[in-house]
Amino acid sequence: MGFRAAAVRAGIKESGKADVGLIVADEICSAAAVFTKNKVVGPAVEISRKHLGNGRGQAVFVNAGNANTCTGKRGEKDAETICKVVAAETGVAAEDVAVCSTGIIGHYLPMEKVKAGIKTAAKRLAKTSKAGGELARAILTTDTKVKTAHRQIRLDRKVVQVAGIAKGSGMIAPNMATMLGFITTDAAISSALLRKVLKEAAEVTFNKVSVDNHMSTSDTVIVLAGGGAGNKKISKVGGDFKKFAEALRGVCDDLARQIAADGEGARCAIKVSVNGAATAGQAQKAVRAIVDSPLVRTAFNGADPNWGRIISAVGYSGAKFKSEGLTCKIAGTMVYRKGRPCAFDARQLHRKMRGKSWEVEVDLAAGKYSDFCYTCDLSREYVHINADYHT
Amino acid sequence: MGFRAAAVRAGIKESGKADVGLIVADEICSAAAVFTKNKVVGPAVEISRKHLGNGRGQAVFVNAGNANTCTGKRGEKDAETICKVVAAETGVAAEDVAVCSTGIIGHYLPMEKVKAGIKTAAKRLAKTSKAGGELARAILTTDTKVKTAHRQIRLDRKVVQVAGIAKGSGMIAPNMATMLGFITTDAAISSALLRKVLKEAAEVTFNKVSVDNHMSTSDTVIVLAGGGAGNKKISKVGGDFKKFAEALRGVCDDLARQIAADGEGARCAIKVSVNGAATAGQAQKAVRAIVDSPLVRTAFNGADPNWGRIISAVGYSGAKFKSEGLTCKIAGTMVYRKGRPCAFDARQLHRKMRGKSWEVEVDLAAGKYSDFCYTCDLSREYVHINADYHT
Repeated sequence: MGFRAAAVRAGIKESGKADVGLIVADEICSAAAVFTKNKVVGPAVEISRKHLGNGRGQAVFVNAGNANTCTGKRGEKDAETICKVVAAETGVAAEDVAVCSTGIIGHYLPMEKVKAGIKTAAKRLAKTSKAGGELARAILTTDTKVKTAHRQIRLDRKVVQVAGIAKGSGMIAPNMATMLGFITTDAAISSALLRKVLKEAAEVTFNKVSVDNHMSTSDTVIVLAGGGAGNKKISKVGGDFKKFAEALRGVCDDLARQIAADGEGARCAIKVSVNGAATAGQAQKAVRAIVDSPLVRTAFNGADPNWGRIISAVGYSGAKFKSEGLTCKIAGTMVYRKGRPCAFDARQLHRKMRGKSWEVEVDLAAGKYSDFCYTCDLSREYVHINADYHT
Repeated sequence: MGFRAAAVRAGIKESGKADVGLIVADEICSAAAVFTKNKVVGPAVEISRKHLGNGRGQAVFVNAGNANTCTGKRGEKDAETICKVVAAETGVAAEDVAVCSTGIIGHYLPMEKVKAGIKTAAKRLAKTSKAGGELARAILTTDTKVKTAHRQIRLDRKVVQVAGIAKGSGMIAPNMATMLGFITTDAAISSALLRKVLKEAAEVTFNKVSVDNHMSTSDTVIVLAGGGAGNKKISKVGGDFKKFAEALRGVCDDLARQIAADGEGARCAIKVSVNGAATAGQAQKAVRAIVDSPLVRTAFNGADPNWGRIISAVGYSGAKFKSEGLTCKIAGTMVYRKGRPCAFDARQLHRKMRGKSWEVEVDLAAGKYSDFCYTCDLSREYVHINADYHT
């Protein structure tokens, strides 16, 4: 038993690129999903929540180019129709189909194109990794790179695969990006534990990515666990559970980092860490204030060690800090130490910051809590993409 | 009795433009001030808070090009020295001098240049409106336009003037912009009531401006009321108080709008209003989510009626709304009405949005509270200014 995938050009994207995909498991799977926390959600999120709510699922429909959000009753009916058509074409029960739609908000889906796309995709379903790769490409919107991740582990002497694909790019804020992620595994695991693993993994990976502080209406990550590996079904928190959890978290972390690095217009990927916070909530507030500041992120774009912007963001974050202990390091170089500016070689640090990937570390000197976020710089290109992506 | 002002080139700004200014009243004034809510503040803010805390003040020193923030004990001493030098040169008591410094964070003030600047400025103090205009220019950082406002009223049959200047541009978030504002008036008013007037006016004007969601460490608005008009001193909330309050609020509103319109890289000024909120706090949350979204503000830049970005920002704002009542109007055109997309002439709306100034109105259909914010679009130019403004 296993998974098949396919991606086709249904004509939703104006570019004419692939835009409809299917993932279908040979048999019913343990299923778990996490969704956007936005209160405005599309019918795709609503129907997927409903269909996967019983911990079971067998197929995922996905389209890019149109989010089918803010489309009222007609949008709801369209999402239901999608499930029915997928069911008819694949033999999966309609209530075991999840739906994901990403793209522009407020436009009705071109349903004739969507239906034709499903039919073609169902015929092309294949087990090859090529099919998975094509699907990974089809779900992209303004992404520039295909995002995939993989782990192989041994559970109960059986080889187990965990494979994921994702899209990200814009409308990316913590508590998921405008992102879709699909993870399949042949591990045998109860749906209750699968949900636990996914929730915990998303918390420290997908929920730690911010590109532009704008939470999407369509964010969805779905895991299907088919059980084909033949391991003894994981039904309690033990050694196997931990191994599987680590593998799944690894896949999510790989995908999350790829999403941050491929943020719209991004030149570089930055991990922002805050240590020494008085509470976990305050650590998060400080991280968010830093990564949500366009001033900070344009300085990242210019590879400018302008730590004043970082420290002033901490100042209005609402997090407590000890002034005489406040410390900031950029790309490994100490720039502000215990409340005082440091002498540093600005030219050398500028060169380091021109690299593809580096870190900002802040210490609040107020406690022992930490948090972090993956983000990217804010570039002219981001403005170009989003000022000129017309409705 | 009246006010004198001067601005000089002290050499703090690399551009060689005017960067140090003084405002000096002939006699001691009723004084009031509002400051940044950032917890990281420069010694200028601290010393001004202290000196104006008794409701009295007579002189304001201001410099642009260097915020003297995150500069430790030495920065504190420098701010004290500034007060002493101003006192020595103008005859005003050091404890009646306020200090405002704006510009880059984390650099020590070049004190020899500052001292020389104060001496020159003190010699040039003049009552002309030209001196005020020069000062308005000297306090600019990346602003492109001088910001001034004026009201003339009659109180107790006497003509009373209220005049203000301001700087804004970047690092501008509600709860004040990175802004400095100086308002002088010849009205006679108690310092307690002057404080009340300023606080209330700032709440609905300066605190409603957001350029980039980054709260500065130096925000300061100071009012000096000299009493030279000869009106009966306003010492209770009555007709004269209301007239004066309206004039002062008018000056603040003019300046706030000019700051939003001249936000870094701004092409257009937008007023974002939210009505129908369940509470005042929720109205504010919804406004903030909209104006803090780079996706929304790049759509403004592209004059793109992409209301999906606005509605999705409302969705994650934390404000309650009734889905079937949610409504959005852009530049007077209904684009989303009671939970459903509207048909509208996108080309015509695009043309309207290419205008210099327009409004976004959202109705949450959940109650009777409203809020608003003045903002601007997010442009490539903003990124250029802030990625290339090197430390």
